[in-house]
Amino acid sequence: MSGPARTPLPREEFIDWLRREGQKRYHDGHRYHVLMHEGKLSRLQLQQWVLNRYYYQTRIPIKDALILAKSEDPAFRRMWIRRIHDHDGTADGEGGLALWLRLAEGVGLDREEVASCRSVLPGVRFACDAYVELVRSRSLLEAVASSLTEFFAPDIMSKRVLAWEKHYPWVSPQVLDYFRSRVTRARRDSEEAIEFVARHATAYELQERCVAALIRKTEILWHLLDCVYAAYIEPGGRLGSGRA
Amino acid sequence: MSGPARTPLPREEFIDWLRREGQKRYHDGHRYHVLMHEGKLSRLQLQQWVLNRYYYQTRIPIKDALILAKSEDPAFRRMWIRRIHDHDGTADGEGGLALWLRLAEGVGLDREEVASCRSVLPGVRFACDAYVELVRSRSLLEAVASSLTEFFAPDIMSKRVLAWEKHYPWVSPQVLDYFRSRVTRARRDSEEAIEFVARHATAYELQERCVAALIRKTEILWHLLDCVYAAYIEPGGRLGSGRA
Repeated sequence: MSGPARTPLPREEFIDWLRREGQKRYHDGHRYHVLMHEGKLSRLQLQQWVLNRYYYQTRIPIKDALILAKSEDPAFRRMWIRRIHDHDGTADGEGGLALWLRLAEGVGLDREEVASCRSVLPGVRFACDAYVELVRSRSLLEAVASSLTEFFAPDIMSKRVLAWEKHYPWVSPQVLDYFRSRVTRARRDSEEAIEFVARHATAYELQERCVAALIRKTEILWHLLDCVYAAYIEPGGRLGSGRA
Repeated sequence: MSGPARTPLPREEFIDWLRREGQKRYHDGHRYHVLMHEGKLSRLQLQQWVLNRYYYQTRIPIKDALILAKSEDPAFRRMWIRRIHDHDGTADGEGGLALWLRLAEGVGLDREEVASCRSVLPGVRFACDAYVELVRSRSLLEAVASSLTEFFAPDIMSKRVLAWEKHYPWVSPQVLDYFRSRVTRARRDSEEAIEFVARHATAYELQERCVAALIRKTEILWHLLDCVYAAYIEPGGRLGSGRA
């Protein structure tokens, strides 16, 4: 009992739809981030965010390799492969993962402890693994659409650098290089991804799937913060909506 | 009812085992290759090998991206990612896939026809897809072990360049660049892979799995030639053992 196929939205309307749905669910509005950017996190609370988020960081090159494997187009793969280099670097100690471990040391954590991921909260692990599974199981188009949270990353990164420099002076400014490096990279990455998504979502149903994939991704990022909030801000409490 | 666990073979014995099992099943002994290297293939038969083998070539960066996605180690990924660059290149018209399409034109095929993969024999497609599925479904160790047919590639590539130059003078020598480029790359790639496999196959059962994965891979390469033989050397005939 399906009606006539709905025609796809024009490009700009579709992009607006993605932006709207992503923006209102983006984790910059999560109360953990609000506390962080207002300078209200304790050292332990900041550390635990860094430690748990590292697990998410380690999933990025893995999900990007899965995206590569879904593409039949060498030109797309040449574009996308750069993201793996961005996180893995070209030598030991380089790249986004290494920068994150430097950040971890900068907030007073043990590097090996963080790198081992053994203290990651179970719910954080489930959410991050769900991201990899989403990318593994859905179409290339949806997998790329799920990356579009990077639309909103440059703002949160710029804000974070300023907030940390102001509120957490015990953290050396150099270790914030990861956030600085993401401002331009996230902009470039999200432009490439939106271009791909706009070109390939040629039916309304595909546009809907892209929006759904992006929403699921925002839920994953949100849940990560819910778990850290429940464990380190309100231990013993329940997972809440997190809306600040 | 399993007996006591068997101790793993010492490194050199394990490598010898892999080499032995791989060598005796490697497709250099397939009668299609024997005919090719003796200069006995017609133009059509050479073309159809190039066309069908191209589908295999297109699977390589995909299976290598799946291997990347299985690794938790940035250092391993930094090493392995080079294989994807080798096939995709850094710009349009570069890399192994582009070189293969130049080879296709060099033997008188239509480039777009080959690139579309629409005329690939069904059995060739099944075998190549089985390779991707093997890599997708097995452990990182077994996936890497399945790449070890590259042990034997430098010899067949060198032999092929000489044979083609001698027997198929209508093929411009420049279009053989793909084969030339593989001689040193296959050597380097197989050395890295054998090092990884020898280090990580720390139990006899793992060593057995590595050998099994390599054998399956040789069957895939062999079946590709069986299909081309059945279609273009003995059309109407059955798929045989192919042993020359």
